[in-house]
Amino acid sequence: MTASSSGAGADIGLVGLGTMGANLALNIAENGFKIAVYNRTTAKTVAFHENAGDLAGNVVPALDLENFVQSLKRPRAVILMVPAGEAVDAQIQALAPLLDWEDLIIDAGNADYHDTNLRAQATMNSGPRFMGIGVSGGEEGARHGPSIMAGGAKDGWDEVAPILKAISAKYEDSPCAAHLGEAGAGHLVKTVHNGIEYADMQMIAEVYGIMRDGYGYTAVQTAEVFEAWDRGALQSYLIKISGKVSRAVDPETAAPMLDVILDRAGQKGTGRWTAIEALMLSTPMGTIEAAVGARNMSALIGKRRQGQALFGPSVQKMSSDQIAPSLLEAALIAGKIICYAQGFELISAAAKQYDWSMPLADIARIWRAGCIIRSSMLNDMASALSDDPDRNLMFAPYFAERLKETHEALRAVVAQGAMHGLPVPALSAALSYFDTMRTERSTANLLQAQRDFFGAHGFERVDREGKGFHGPWAMG
Amino acid sequence: MTASSSGAGADIGLVGLGTMGANLALNIAENGFKIAVYNRTTAKTVAFHENAGDLAGNVVPALDLENFVQSLKRPRAVILMVPAGEAVDAQIQALAPLLDWEDLIIDAGNADYHDTNLRAQATMNSGPRFMGIGVSGGEEGARHGPSIMAGGAKDGWDEVAPILKAISAKYEDSPCAAHLGEAGAGHLVKTVHNGIEYADMQMIAEVYGIMRDGYGYTAVQTAEVFEAWDRGALQSYLIKISGKVSRAVDPETAAPMLDVILDRAGQKGTGRWTAIEALMLSTPMGTIEAAVGARNMSALIGKRRQGQALFGPSVQKMSSDQIAPSLLEAALIAGKIICYAQGFELISAAAKQYDWSMPLADIARIWRAGCIIRSSMLNDMASALSDDPDRNLMFAPYFAERLKETHEALRAVVAQGAMHGLPVPALSAALSYFDTMRTERSTANLLQAQRDFFGAHGFERVDREGKGFHGPWAMG
Repeated sequence: MTASSSGAGADIGLVGLGTMGANLALNIAENGFKIAVYNRTTAKTVAFHENAGDLAGNVVPALDLENFVQSLKRPRAVILMVPAGEAVDAQIQALAPLLDWEDLIIDAGNADYHDTNLRAQATMNSGPRFMGIGVSGGEEGARHGPSIMAGGAKDGWDEVAPILKAISAKYEDSPCAAHLGEAGAGHLVKTVHNGIEYADMQMIAEVYGIMRDGYGYTAVQTAEVFEAWDRGALQSYLIKISGKVSRAVDPETAAPMLDVILDRAGQKGTGRWTAIEALMLSTPMGTIEAAVGARNMSALIGKRRQGQALFGPSVQKMSSDQIAPSLLEAALIAGKIICYAQGFELISAAAKQYDWSMPLADIARIWRAGCIIRSSMLNDMASALSDDPDRNLMFAPYFAERLKETHEALRAVVAQGAMHGLPVPALSAALSYFDTMRTERSTANLLQAQRDFFGAHGFERVDREGKGFHGPWAMG
Repeated sequence: MTASSSGAGADIGLVGLGTMGANLALNIAENGFKIAVYNRTTAKTVAFHENAGDLAGNVVPALDLENFVQSLKRPRAVILMVPAGEAVDAQIQALAPLLDWEDLIIDAGNADYHDTNLRAQATMNSGPRFMGIGVSGGEEGARHGPSIMAGGAKDGWDEVAPILKAISAKYEDSPCAAHLGEAGAGHLVKTVHNGIEYADMQMIAEVYGIMRDGYGYTAVQTAEVFEAWDRGALQSYLIKISGKVSRAVDPETAAPMLDVILDRAGQKGTGRWTAIEALMLSTPMGTIEAAVGARNMSALIGKRRQGQALFGPSVQKMSSDQIAPSLLEAALIAGKIICYAQGFELISAAAKQYDWSMPLADIARIWRAGCIIRSSMLNDMASALSDDPDRNLMFAPYFAERLKETHEALRAVVAQGAMHGLPVPALSAALSYFDTMRTERSTANLLQAQRDFFGAHGFERVDREGKGFHGPWAMG
């Protein structure tokens, strides 16, 4: 399949012209591919074509599914960009009878990867081939270059890869689109991406809290700090926009934007999915769990007000001599490495669970541009994972060195946060993970003793093989 | 239904003579009720009857289900004590045709409460009535007095309550058995009980770690501390057995038992269920999540060894002058209050979600004896919840006072743990929850600014009503 605008049929089709679908379709058209589009509401299809401007020549509007399918080159490839859940199944059911077994359906929505697994399974022996792809980068990314995480039919990927690589973001010259494994592997990776995004954002919010409530910094002062960090090891989209939103001024009140925004954070659930998946796969993921928890607590404004009234404002002032901004930066670097280590461990655990072969280094590579968590650090992660994908990221020589340089700062920030009543749940969870993962002899021996005492669950011993040993407990 | 050993039929039946079922049946027989028992393996039923000793007269062994059902007084009540999952459904299917709509099936296993909800729903319009009850206290509790958390058919509860209250643990004279709400309410409460149990155990293990690795205490020294605490505000079964296992000596090596037990903690999944449920219901539950995470990390012995080799042993020694044992005790008191506050919030959230009327004070009451988390503090919790069940437990006057006395100790322990490389994930999560819930103005305004910047998700403002405001972001 190569770029074409001949009349020989569209290179690819797209169903669902919502914001994400429309932008993705324009991106495909702009890259020289002919794209057939269909939306359940015919007027939307017509309007999309009319508004496509210079790109209209590459857009084939179809008013019904039959025409849509007939307008596609064989083997046909259809991208679904419809709301996750039942709408996807409904579209698959509508399309399947019109497609051949050699055709390809690509769910590009924000699916739960378990659903993608089931859909891939259902099409395994009959019907068109199936892929699930995660698309990150929001509206802007969809239009001008998202990160694309693909899973499912590998031969299907080989056919559509030229299109998906062409429309994807580029890191230097490298496209941020890759096939990451079977069935729901792409959607799993997108879910973990979002979980990491939650954690990254929360850790930034925690150091913002130290600057705002500890130092007493104005929004502009925090902007200056974020801007400086964006020129260093923390260079990333999220740090960059933290600087931008800190600097922005409300046109109506002339106050800093941050000061007029209510502290109730929304969520669409993918952070929660990541945390649940981690629990299901017995993978420790405290940093992301803490980030999801912080969002949930942000909704409890009434209770938080009650708490403040009852316990008084916490002792929050601290001097930037106690914790310099450079220590906050180092703590964030440590937290970020630790959080990504957790994320990649979760992907590994899912790969083991489903017997998928997942190239962890490629995941880091396609996250380097286009997606929300893009950062310069991901380039080093790609190298470390390429070197040894089975090793915890914290233990890769490059990141072990960074952690040796920064973990004392993380300790200091967690300790000072605790002493000053400034909540740092995600950074604390990151530190606990680091310290637990460097402790050969943990305290779980006490847990096993307790469990054996009250439930006769048995334990292992340090001095010999075997399970199911019991203690000489005196009951009662 | 009253105690009876006449030949007029058994008062209640029990299916499944595993450890828990057999002990529960003996408990019922010992309390003067006539109980019919059935097990799929006939030999087990016969052996149970033969070994029932003095109680054999109150046991009616049945060799097939028909005889089992026929031996019961009407309306019949049947307790299932079979493995959670498919075995329960199989037993219900086998029993239902033999029972009338006025009869009662009671699942007393460790069911996922969502399954109990579905089973209750399925029997709503036809078939026998259905209850799900959580039974806590292990083998010992089942035999001599468990805590019983019941949900489902209220009229069924009224009929069997005399039996279940009689066999339950007693706190002073009050039976630890209550009907807690519709459908799966009882199994939900049992799940949360276990989640709290995980957190309670983990927080104890964290202060144990400070004593062992920080102070350099021997097992006997930690035993002395636990024993002292068991005479104070922390008086509880888990503190008591922490003292006992710390004092126990391995008969084979003469070493302290704790020192020969491997630090790999098992789990049966109910802690995980609690954490997942909290995520599903958007309820912050960091302390329990951290406890589940710690168990998961305990399994990663190889990686932890790798981490210690790479980063060196953490700087763990601290003097008991820096953190006195009395500060550890105060920190545990604070952590415990906070953890229970989270647990009761989760139960409230589930009650709202399912429109169940759940008496929170009764839950605290029936946890005062029989179950693993029994403690003197639960008596005060029952009072606080009886006073105002909708208020976060931390805000009840009694517990607010305790937190005012202890939160500085919790801060000190978290801070010193961080500085000394001694992991305190559950205590840290407790502190973060406390501090966040006393912070009227959190840092989630930054999260909302970021979300609006990259995804146009919109935000609320502090200075006016409404949603979906956007910032004047300069893109690019």
